[in-house]
Amino acid sequence: MPGSKPVPDIVIGRLPIYLRALGHLLEEGQQITASQDLARRLRISSAQIRKDLSHFGEFGRQGLGYDIAHLRDQIRRILKVDRIWDVALVGAGDLGHAIAGYGGFEGRGFHVACVFDSDPQKIGSRLGMFEVYDSAQLVERLQELGIQVAIVAVPASAAQAVVDDLVRAGVRAILNYAPITVTVPPDVRVQYIDPVVHLQRMTYYL
Amino acid sequence: MPGSKPVPDIVIGRLPIYLRALGHLLEEGQQITASQDLARRLRISSAQIRKDLSHFGEFGRQGLGYDIAHLRDQIRRILKVDRIWDVALVGAGDLGHAIAGYGGFEGRGFHVACVFDSDPQKIGSRLGMFEVYDSAQLVERLQELGIQVAIVAVPASAAQAVVDDLVRAGVRAILNYAPITVTVPPDVRVQYIDPVVHLQRMTYYL
Repeated sequence: MPGSKPVPDIVIGRLPIYLRALGHLLEEGQQITASQDLARRLRISSAQIRKDLSHFGEFGRQGLGYDIAHLRDQIRRILKVDRIWDVALVGAGDLGHAIAGYGGFEGRGFHVACVFDSDPQKIGSRLGMFEVYDSAQLVERLQELGIQVAIVAVPASAAQAVVDDLVRAGVRAILNYAPITVTVPPDVRVQYIDPVVHLQRMTYYL
Repeated sequence: MPGSKPVPDIVIGRLPIYLRALGHLLEEGQQITASQDLARRLRISSAQIRKDLSHFGEFGRQGLGYDIAHLRDQIRRILKVDRIWDVALVGAGDLGHAIAGYGGFEGRGFHVACVFDSDPQKIGSRLGMFEVYDSAQLVERLQELGIQVAIVAVPASAAQAVVDDLVRAGVRAILNYAPITVTVPPDVRVQYIDPVVHLQRMTYYL
């Protein structure tokens, strides 16, 4: 039954993938899907998908498949992205610009709320619709705003110091673009954007 | 036994994660690791790690753990990143600049070899050590160079057309940063860089 024991992190990790696929199906005008359809799209076994979802209750009916919009809403709720999380972006370089202008956040639970950099030439400048704040004020500002989610887009050499500040400010979910492993307390989560991991997964098949 | 039946794609997808963790262990000066150590770092069960690796033969000895450098070399060989793949980068905007300057490719099997854009203002300009080529010449140039791996860093609206050109040029592994699902023939692989998938995986725990 849902809630009786912790769901493995690896299962949680697949839910956003399911959510994205369900979003695409809805865009394509579908209303009902079978775990087999999802499985084919995602190259995950349908048994795995059913088992993953069973951690959270019963979503499909035998022989009828899943109501896509309903399943999407349930997964959103489980992942707590049925609300909008304000996100702090640290790093106003090329990558920071690209992230601030990223079109994929909308409608998926996140909103870049503020941007920081330590470069005096960037502080006070505009980055899209944002004024770039001084990283020296990061802890204070994030505490004021109650921000819990951050994206790190600084050079590898600066990433650990930025992450330490974020943790001090109360951030508990960090998406790190810097090509370096950072250290955080056990109650803080870090995910890495690492293009090489994705490339290596494909070269196997070449 | 290795080679007797296809290894599930989900297993292949974990090998780069193991490879990255092994690299970090070596940087930290470790020579031997147990599947339990890896499991703790990666929040994957040690049984899963052993099972994944068993698809490819015997790498560890009971009670002795894994020789890290040996296991890394074997996984590199399996993933075919014991060589350097030339990569075409399409898109010379903020994101393209960030990717061209990314410090994480080195020593991990990939090398950005050329950059393309369709913007007349960008064509012929320098992007780091590269001259930006005209996307109109993409098919011809990639065929000449025999490039099989590409990174797409163009706006969502342009991504499918770029991918079509890449496929025509013989590219079979595409890393797509654009927030859109692209369509490719069955023999071409696409991976997505999607920050939201990573963020959603963390909000579950908030």
